[in-house]
Formats: sequence, C-alpha cells, structure tokens
Amino acid sequence: MRVGVLGGGQLGRMLALAGYPLGLAFRFLDPSPEACAGGVGELVVGDYLDEKALFRFAHGLDLITYEFENVPVEAARRLAEKLPVYPPPKALEIAQDRLAEKSFMQSLGVPTPPFRRVDTLEELGEGLAEVGFPALLKTRRGGYDGKGQALLTSWEEAEKAFHALGGEGLILEGFVPFHREVSLLAVRGLGGEVAFYPLVENRHQGGILRLSLAPAPGTSQALQEKAEGYAQKAMEALGYVGVLALELFQVGEELLFNEMAPRVHNSGHWTLEGAETSQFENHLRALLGFPLGPTAPRGHSAMANLIGVKPDFREALALPGLHLHWYGKAVRPGRKVGHLTLRRDTWEDLARDLPRLLALAGAW
Amino acid sequence: MRVGVLGGGQLGRMLALAGYPLGLAFRFLDPSPEACAGGVGELVVGDYLDEKALFRFAHGLDLITYEFENVPVEAARRLAEKLPVYPPPKALEIAQDRLAEKSFMQSLGVPTPPFRRVDTLEELGEGLAEVGFPALLKTRRGGYDGKGQALLTSWEEAEKAFHALGGEGLILEGFVPFHREVSLLAVRGLGGEVAFYPLVENRHQGGILRLSLAPAPGTSQALQEKAEGYAQKAMEALGYVGVLALELFQVGEELLFNEMAPRVHNSGHWTLEGAETSQFENHLRALLGFPLGPTAPRGHSAMANLIGVKPDFREALALPGLHLHWYGKAVRPGRKVGHLTLRRDTWEDLARDLPRLLALAGAW
Repeated sequence: MRVGVLGGGQLGRMLALAGYPLGLAFRFLDPSPEACAGGVGELVVGDYLDEKALFRFAHGLDLITYEFENVPVEAARRLAEKLPVYPPPKALEIAQDRLAEKSFMQSLGVPTPPFRRVDTLEELGEGLAEVGFPALLKTRRGGYDGKGQALLTSWEEAEKAFHALGGEGLILEGFVPFHREVSLLAVRGLGGEVAFYPLVENRHQGGILRLSLAPAPGTSQALQEKAEGYAQKAMEALGYVGVLALELFQVGEELLFNEMAPRVHNSGHWTLEGAETSQFENHLRALLGFPLGPTAPRGHSAMANLIGVKPDFREALALPGLHLHWYGKAVRPGRKVGHLTLRRDTWEDLARDLPRLLALAGAW
Repeated sequence: MRVGVLGGGQLGRMLALAGYPLGLAFRFLDPSPEACAGGVGELVVGDYLDEKALFRFAHGLDLITYEFENVPVEAARRLAEKLPVYPPPKALEIAQDRLAEKSFMQSLGVPTPPFRRVDTLEELGEGLAEVGFPALLKTRRGGYDGKGQALLTSWEEAEKAFHALGGEGLILEGFVPFHREVSLLAVRGLGGEVAFYPLVENRHQGGILRLSLAPAPGTSQALQEKAEGYAQKAMEALGYVGVLALELFQVGEELLFNEMAPRVHNSGHWTLEGAETSQFENHLRALLGFPLGPTAPRGHSAMANLIGVKPDFREALALPGLHLHWYGKAVRPGRKVGHLTLRRDTWEDLARDLPRLLALAGAW
C-alpha cells in the first residue's frame, strides 16, 4: 500500500517511520525541497494547488492523508475525487477556521469560551461589551504556534490589534482563567470504532507547546470521559477517520473546547514510547481499516519540544529513559527541530527528572 | 551523520528506522536491487568486493557497520582503512568460521560443546571416536538458518554427510542434550561501557528461529550473570563496539557457547517494543559514542518470525499488544518476511496468548 501525505514536516516523517513496519510506502507533497520527511520517504516538491504537482503526487497512491492542517481544502477535495482522503476534507475545512470549529463544537453541545465573529471595528466593540476584558483577538485562519493573536486589556489595545491582525476575518474570545490546558488524542477507524489516549497536560510558552505530561497528572476518570464524549460527538458528526486532537481548557472539573487538529498532534508524540500503540501507527491503522491498537499508557511520560535548539546528544542520551527525536531540520530560532520524551514507570520518578528534561530542551 | 550499512536486509531496515530519530542518514550496500532496506534508505547495488561499488558506497559516509555477517572480511578491512568500521572486522572474521569462533571462546575459558576440525575422512573418524554419536557435522563457513549441517547417528550417515558438505572445511560437534537454547544480546560502546539485555529463550524449527521469549522464563540471576561474563570477555578481547549476540545452550545451570553474531540479531527484535531501548538504537548509540540506553525489559515479550507466510494483517492487529513488522519483501518459501511481537505486562498474560501468536505466524 502506498500512502500519500500532504505536508512533509516532522509529523509526516514520524508517520512514515511508524508505517514502514506495517509494510507501507510513503510519498509526501510539500512546497519546500527541504521538507524533513524527504529524508525518510519520497518527496514531491510542489504547491498544493499546482495541478501537475498534485497529479505527480497522487499517481499510484492507494490513499491520502495530511500532516499539516493548513493544506488548502481545495487540494484535499480535488484529490478526494480520485482517491480515499482521510480524515475527511470537511474536518480540515472546519479546523482551519477558529470560528467554524468553535461554532461546530458549540452546535454539538460542547462548552467553549465565549466567542464572537469580528469583521468590523463595530463588531469588535459589541463583542468586547459582551465578553469584557481581558479578551483574545485572533485571526480566524492561518494562525499557528501562537502567531496571529493578541491579548486585549484595553480599548486602545483592541483597536491597535484589530488593525494589526488585518481588520477582518477575526474572532474575539473571552479570556478564561483556566486551571490548565489539556488535550485529547482520539482515533476513529474506517468501521467507526474509536479509541482514546489519556488526557495530556500541555504547557505553552509564547504560544508554542513546550511540555506535555502524559497521562495528565491528577485527572479524574469523569474528566477523561467528558473529553472522550466531546471527541466522539465531533468524530461522528464528521464521519471522521484517523487521529483527531482536541485542545481543551480545564476549569475545575469542566472542559472548554479551544481548538481541534484533524491529524496527529505534537501533544501525542509521547505515545511513541509511552503508549502500547503510537498515535502515528493508530492513525495509519484507522485509515487502512485495520483494528486500532491499545492506547493504554506505559508508565508516565514527559515530552519537551526542542524549539530552535540542538541539545548535546551525548548529554541528552545519558539520561536513562530519555528518547531523542531529531527531525533532521536546520536549526532556526523558534523552529521545532525535535523533541525529547522521558518515560518512567512512576509519576514520582518522572517528576524528579523533569528539571533535567527541561534543561536539556533549553526551557529551564 | 551518515551511516553506511553493509547488507540491505531487514536488520538494516530496522537499524535505519531506529536511527532516523537520532538524526542519522543511511546508505546500504547489497548485491540485490530488491534488498528491502532500499525501501527506507539509499541503496547502492553492487558486489561487496567490487572496488567501484565500495567507493560509491563509502563516499561521504561518516562510519560503517554491517547487518549481515557473511560480508567478505576483505571488504570490511578495505573500508576500515578509510573510515571507522564497527564492530571490528576481526569480530566478523571470527564469527564467519564456526571453528574460529568456538576456538576463540574456548581460549577465553568459555565452555563449548566438544568440537574437532574436519578436513579429511580420517579426521572425521578420529573426531567421531572422541565425541561419539549423535554428532553434528557442519561447514565451518557460510552456514545460515540451518543450512550446511547434518546430524550424524551412524558411520554411514557420517561419510555421506562429509561428501555432501564438500569434504573439507568442516567442523564436527558433539551433540549436547541441552535443556533449551538461549541468547544474550550484549552491547559495548566506543568508550568501553557495556550493557546486556535479559537472556532470551529461542525455539528453532528446521534450523530457523521461530520463536523468542524474552526475558527467558525461569532464568536465574546467576545464569544471567554467567552469560554476561562470557559476552564481556569476548567483547573486551575483540575491542568490540556495537551489539554482539551470543547463542548458547543451557544445560541445567550451565551455558555452552554455540555461535556468535557480530551484529543486531533476530532474537533481539523483541527489544523494539519490549525494552526501554531497542537493540537497533543501542547498536547505533554504541557506534556513535553516545551513552547506551537502558536495556531493562518492559513486561514480557514473545517474537514469532514470519517464515514464507504473510498473515492477515487485520486479524493479526486485532490481537491487542501485537506489533507487526513486515519487511516489504516478496513472500517465498523459507524466507523471513517479517515478525510479530506480542508484549504483555505479565508472563501469565503472555503465555495465554502464545497459541494465537503462533497461529498467526503459521507455526502452530
């Protein structure tokens, strides 16, 4: 079976590494000749909307998925006329728009922070009157890793941010004093069977995920089930196939929907060593119509992203139970170039070495 | 870092999959254009002794290893004039000759079954007078997966086998009524540090490994330490770097050396899921001078080879905790085309599902 992946970044790379043992072959489409998945599979360089590139990419493939959520929906739809494309392009379309994804989840009865569409200064004023300060103003599309958003604490800031963010296509969100950010990795197979990984606690810095703790410490079974219920509703409404990531705010024992990603997700990288089946393998199993693998954690894991830093590999690997994932990318400030996962049998053992992990990731 | 691998079979393939997360790139040299490692890395097709092929292979590499023990030693030595080649070619040379490897281990004080060099019918007669029937007559070189050997129970059989096996370059071995076959995966780093995986129990059929159980059930700490002591002696005598596999016969609480393999080994495939660090990653860590990773088992694992059979993937993956490794090779009778590893937290849970594993592997 030949699998095509739209996008050639590290998620694609890790999909391929998980898929080779299943006997799969991989081809990637990416506008950049330096796309790091090219180091482990066939890379077609081209624009996502270039007909010729799409044809070269699709030729001879058995099915197509994506590893990057800002692939033009049009490209996914065009490919879907010829070949199975999972997750469904509809999920891609919804996830690309912060207003659409929040409206979608709200329509399913999933709680969200208060939000308002903002295309004019007038709408911004009305919105702020309702949600109050502080509030967040974000572009509806294209924001990524903390880009395209602003925290508003005054009318003056609000007006400035409105113009800086383009003056239209925005969403205003009420600021929720949440206890922590968590995510749920869910997977749904071709036949409709579902599986869920334990909730993960995520710590961001500058809008970029820095650290994930899995399972999220101190999570009740009720909270886990709440999150699973939300994901299941979303997946069923979309006829979803593959891994779906939900980012949520935890407020006491409540969960508010923040974002979704219709793909494998950075907060699921710990599953490579910390779960019986990785998110990458389960994504592929789902697409192929294979039974899903167990999602139970093996001990406790902490995943730290390497953001614009290359640690000393010798020093990193000297920490027992540390697993290095270097993506083969050139190091540039702010760029995710790898991650480190530390696995321990107990949370206490893991917690003891967290400072060492963070120091290695340059985040301490 | 660019790693060159002599041989392009499944061991090379799994080395590459383990090495990509460490930021490595791989090139393989194999006489066959169908070599399955070519599916996951650059493949140079050529004979091991073809100067031009060796040059194309070695150009731009940082270090070289092998995944196939019948690579001509001359090729390894020639490459070692230009680049680091690990494990040392001396280990390859010894392991390629059953007489040399047994003599080597005997010289280190490691017990072996009785053995005699046989190059003439007269030597065969003398040997049989000493070791008695039953006995094993083997070619000293080139035997693999049960080929190149015969069980002797009478003078008549002995003479026939002597001629059938070529009439020279043979070794006669006393037959040991062993309790079971076990193997030890050992690894030694560039700086001399060593690590050992737990002993594995191996079950062969027609000379081919069918099933490995890890850790070997019912193994005493004393037995483990005995095996580690033997491996350590061998590795130090050879200035060894990388993974070394020792195949041993267990007779009560004694271990007799049978064979060594200066490379990652089929009986270590379970480490991919069943140990904190796989044999593949530890082999690479050793070569690169990185600290070795923990070799502790995670629960209990059974690895079954897929010999000339392709199981129904859906059915196989429906068994929770089963991990599929398909090598991307064409299925042919007697050919190793993949393996299945079943991992469980307890031995009892593993034992219960062993019949299912064996059925999936077509070995039941």
